[in-house]
Amino acid sequence: MPDSPDELAALLARPPSATRRPTVAALEDRLFQPIPVLDHGFVRLVDYMGDDAAIVQAARVSYGAGTKAVRDDRGLIRYLMRHRHTTPFEMCEIKLHIKLPIFVARQWIRHRTASVNEYSARYSILDREFYLPSPGDLAVQSSTNRQGRDQPLDPDQAAAVLDLLRDDAVQVYSHYEQLLNDQGDGTPVDPAAPRLARELARMNLTLGWYTQWYWKINLHNLFHFLSLRIDPHAQHEIRVYAEAIADLTRAWAPAAFEAFEDYRQHAAFLSREELSIVRAVVAGSSLEVEIERSRLSAREKRELRDKLCSPS
Amino acid sequence: MPDSPDELAALLARPPSATRRPTVAALEDRLFQPIPVLDHGFVRLVDYMGDDAAIVQAARVSYGAGTKAVRDDRGLIRYLMRHRHTTPFEMCEIKLHIKLPIFVARQWIRHRTASVNEYSARYSILDREFYLPSPGDLAVQSSTNRQGRDQPLDPDQAAAVLDLLRDDAVQVYSHYEQLLNDQGDGTPVDPAAPRLARELARMNLTLGWYTQWYWKINLHNLFHFLSLRIDPHAQHEIRVYAEAIADLTRAWAPAAFEAFEDYRQHAAFLSREELSIVRAVVAGSSLEVEIERSRLSAREKRELRDKLCSPS
Amino acid sequence: MPDSPDELAALLARPPSATRRPTVAALEDRLFQPIPVLDHGFVRLVDYMGDDAAIVQAARVSYGAGTKAVRDDRGLIRYLMRHRHTTPFEMCEIKLHIKLPIFVARQWIRHRTASVNEYSARYSILDREFYLPSPGDLAVQSSTNRQGRDQPLDPDQAAAVLDLLRDDAVQVYSHYEQLLNDQGDGTPVDPAAPRLARELARMNLTLGWYTQWYWKINLHNLFHFLSLRIDPHAQHEIRVYAEAIADLTRAWAPAAFEAFEDYRQHAAFLSREELSIVRAVVAGSSLEVEIERSRLSAREKRELRDKLCSPS
Amino acid sequence: MPDSPDELAALLARPPSATRRPTVAALEDRLFQPIPVLDHGFVRLVDYMGDDAAIVQAARVSYGAGTKAVRDDRGLIRYLMRHRHTTPFEMCEIKLHIKLPIFVARQWIRHRTASVNEYSARYSILDREFYLPSPGDLAVQSSTNRQGRDQPLDPDQAAAVLDLLRDDAVQVYSHYEQLLNDQGDGTPVDPAAPRLARELARMNLTLGWYTQWYWKINLHNLFHFLSLRIDPHAQHEIRVYAEAIADLTRAWAPAAFEAFEDYRQHAAFLSREELSIVRAVVAGSSLEVEIERSRLSAREKRELRDKLCSPS
Repeated sequence: MPDSPDELAALLARPPSATRRPTVAALEDRLFQPIPVLDHGFVRLVDYMGDDAAIVQAARVSYGAGTKAVRDDRGLIRYLMRHRHTTPFEMCEIKLHIKLPIFVARQWIRHRTASVNEYSARYSILDREFYLPSPGDLAVQSSTNRQGRDQPLDPDQAAAVLDLLRDDAVQVYSHYEQLLNDQGDGTPVDPAAPRLARELARMNLTLGWYTQWYWKINLHNLFHFLSLRIDPHAQHEIRVYAEAIADLTRAWAPAAFEAFEDYRQHAAFLSREELSIVRAVVAGSSLEVEIERSRLSAREKRELRDKLCSPS
Repeated sequence: MPDSPDELAALLARPPSATRRPTVAALEDRLFQPIPVLDHGFVRLVDYMGDDAAIVQAARVSYGAGTKAVRDDRGLIRYLMRHRHTTPFEMCEIKLHIKLPIFVARQWIRHRTASVNEYSARYSILDREFYLPSPGDLAVQSSTNRQGRDQPLDPDQAAAVLDLLRDDAVQVYSHYEQLLNDQGDGTPVDPAAPRLARELARMNLTLGWYTQWYWKINLHNLFHFLSLRIDPHAQHEIRVYAEAIADLTRAWAPAAFEAFEDYRQHAAFLSREELSIVRAVVAGSSLEVEIERSRLSAREKRELRDKLCSPS
Repeated sequence: MPDSPDELAALLARPPSATRRPTVAALEDRLFQPIPVLDHGFVRLVDYMGDDAAIVQAARVSYGAGTKAVRDDRGLIRYLMRHRHTTPFEMCEIKLHIKLPIFVARQWIRHRTASVNEYSARYSILDREFYLPSPGDLAVQSSTNRQGRDQPLDPDQAAAVLDLLRDDAVQVYSHYEQLLNDQGDGTPVDPAAPRLARELARMNLTLGWYTQWYWKINLHNLFHFLSLRIDPHAQHEIRVYAEAIADLTRAWAPAAFEAFEDYRQHAAFLSREELSIVRAVVAGSSLEVEIERSRLSAREKRELRDKLCSPS
Repeated sequence: MPDSPDELAALLARPPSATRRPTVAALEDRLFQPIPVLDHGFVRLVDYMGDDAAIVQAARVSYGAGTKAVRDDRGLIRYLMRHRHTTPFEMCEIKLHIKLPIFVARQWIRHRTASVNEYSARYSILDREFYLPSPGDLAVQSSTNRQGRDQPLDPDQAAAVLDLLRDDAVQVYSHYEQLLNDQGDGTPVDPAAPRLARELARMNLTLGWYTQWYWKINLHNLFHFLSLRIDPHAQHEIRVYAEAIADLTRAWAPAAFEAFEDYRQHAAFLSREELSIVRAVVAGSSLEVEIERSRLSAREKRELRDKLCSPS
């Protein structure tokens, strides 16, 4: 696969150039270095454009003299995030190299607003790299949440599941290699056997196989991605990637990221009915009384209690 | 301009066809009829695709057996809206013919997710139709909100403003006609004068001039448009269009529209800090005490009081 | 999975409604009927919006009186396609239900301009349905084209490959079921064993597994999809879907489809250099003389001969 | 308006930073400097991301070892452009500050794939800057091409047109100022008169007025913009902006730009019918004989002669 250790070393050894573009010292230090995720995956910063100041610059052209009242940049960025003035955040762009299991890639690609170049198993041969969860991440199907997991398997059960997953992965890859019948340069391993087309042989690999891609997205769309994928309801295997990217984003545009945390990630929505309950509570009533007399469904009642009574 | 009274009569006289596609009786009655907006504008339903059931159908393929727990369609649609599962709403599409002032069109077109075919003043000659506000809509610049208006002008002032706007519009159009020097069929009015290229002559018209377009958008993106443009902070001249479209949308997909009203239009966001204030209030503290001890800015304090103390 | 034979029968039995929207008789007959593709896949028309006349209507609003010179609709549509005036084609929309192998879905989803709701193996259990190529579609890796296939395997080799693919698929599915340990309603098959979370168990399935989705796209973007996926260089397994969709499109908007065939599918590009070669040939020179004296690369020379000398 | 001479001087004086990102020396020299366009407009490079090498890097991850056959970067970029493998070009991004007349902005914004922050006349007051064509650019309406211009006006006629345009512009701006009644800081000029809301007053300005925006787009979408807007059929007033941007693009990614010129800008399409004519000519027939016996419309015949007989 691309970006071997040698290529990485060459990139890291490359002398810096001088630029008058916005530059973020905290990101320069992280350029090109793979951040490990899962057992074989990584997130690697390849390029970026813009910073907190670029957001402010774009907002000031839009809102003109109007923005002078918000004196400091941090305040203006928080104002933009709070009031969903999202276009200035589009002025920043980030490009990452990501290695991830195919079932994660399938969720990820549903975010249509990014640019992607993925490693193609039509053209090239996939390495023998598949995802095996760590034992603690193997969990039973949740009974309350159809798309979630519950408590982890006990260690013996986990070991059995991992054996099964590993054995199947090893077997399908060995058959994939047999079908390809290719020493890597187009020469057959077994001259008596056919070399099946790569675009067909790949169908024998499982969804746990690793793929990789370049992924480029602007900061507005990245925040949308993060808000869905950092969420506790997101699948663990994509959440760990989102968390690695969130760390990079915090270093890249700290004021924007803080605003994202305050006004998106840790914010809550109140529906029309929930809002009128909260107004009644503010006016002196009790939450339980108001919830009971409301038209909320049982599920919404539970959700509202979770929102308003759990620790912040 | 296209869609003259004759063409409209022809459309309305067209006999219905039989279809097995989802059909919404309440929209069929409204097809093709212009809904007047402002002094010369309109919104006109031209075509639609899908309905509430199409949203449910798409959600059930995504969430499979999982959605069976939410038994009724209305409940499922409300669940989708509440949890921002937005893709099923993309399965519905609406196509409108809209006539609107150019300064409104310039705001509108910033919604990039629609398909648009606009009348082109490069190819064709614009009619003598410009927007004149009704006297009650002429208002002074707001001093607290840089992008808003405050109380209306008094009647004499309003009359003077309208005279000025009308006189300038009449004059620039008369010069536009003089520059075009075209009887409408390419024959000059004044054979001794040149016929200036249409693409140049148009620059003498003002932003109050009416244009028109076909505008096609899916229901998810339409809700986004409506949430921004029905908002009290939207400019009056675009809000009246959004309201006309909202009426059509309510007739088209009533359950989705109700969910939009409850979970988007009349919903409120609580930031991380606001949420912790509300939690303290639920736990027995007073709003004012909590607001005062919070890290909210003066502006955010005002916004929070507005959210939680105003009538629902 | 959704849309069982019973549900299909119910849809087909549904009495037609009356509509004044554009209706295409040739499509009404095809609504809801699965068109078989590959061994277990299908394409099924679920809804549509617009027709050839809708393209003309949008073009006439844009180009106004200008389009009157092009008197007939077919001529106007051909003019639009020839001159890449693409927005009027966006006024038509089609919605399909598609069942397809995951490795095909992974290519397909790269078209970002469609709306998609896919069956989710996080929420639901996948059926035991995987793609097995027909023996004639098993072919060796092309040596000249890294992403293609060459001549088919001989029958014995093909049988051996199919056995291998089938055995692995059967085994990984049997392990998938064992990991799920679910009678389909959340009751364990083996009460002593854990029920592994669905979002994890799915990773043991291969890329040949069938998934399904609703896919909605406008006609302009559909033509782009078709131009890439009907192409002889597209992988066979996606091309057969594209061909089924092309048949529907021909029935839906015959004039637009004919224009697509004439000006896109069977059209050719001439680069600046190729154009000057063709001009020299038109002026009396010979193709081979001009090719030899040109700056084309060896590959481009071959491509140009293929373009200009092969039968049309 | 933003970016006054002082701000520009400050930007230019800013010392360069060190970066390990791809840096293009030829662009660094052009950063921030306004390139004059029309009488008051400009294009100004504000930021960029990626270069020719970034295109190659993305292509190599997609096509893997496959791309090794195309040894040099220029060859690979030309291959990508020729075969419409467009995604690697999305890996480069450019951000411009542009000042342009509103009627040009209205054409420009139809390119939906860019990020835009425009100066808002709801919030701020527009300067007294409007477009007046140079006398040589004033031309009569084309009689053969409904959207074009023909020969220029004679000098006396041009002077009369310019007087008319200038007088109307001066008048509507003076009325705009009277309606605003604002010294620039919210203090009325005439304390006895109202200060009309900015969002209303702006409607008295003409489409020739200058606006400005930040515009950010990736290289693939930029090439699409350029292919439409550099075209001789594009309106002169947008073409001059496209040409300024094309110059920047050539400096930014010279190999990609050269490929764009060879395979897009100066390339030609042959329809199915045209291709079969050219094949017949290659096989020895004459162009005129083949054109006459073809099914091409009169217009297409003319277009084909233009394509194949005009000087390259």
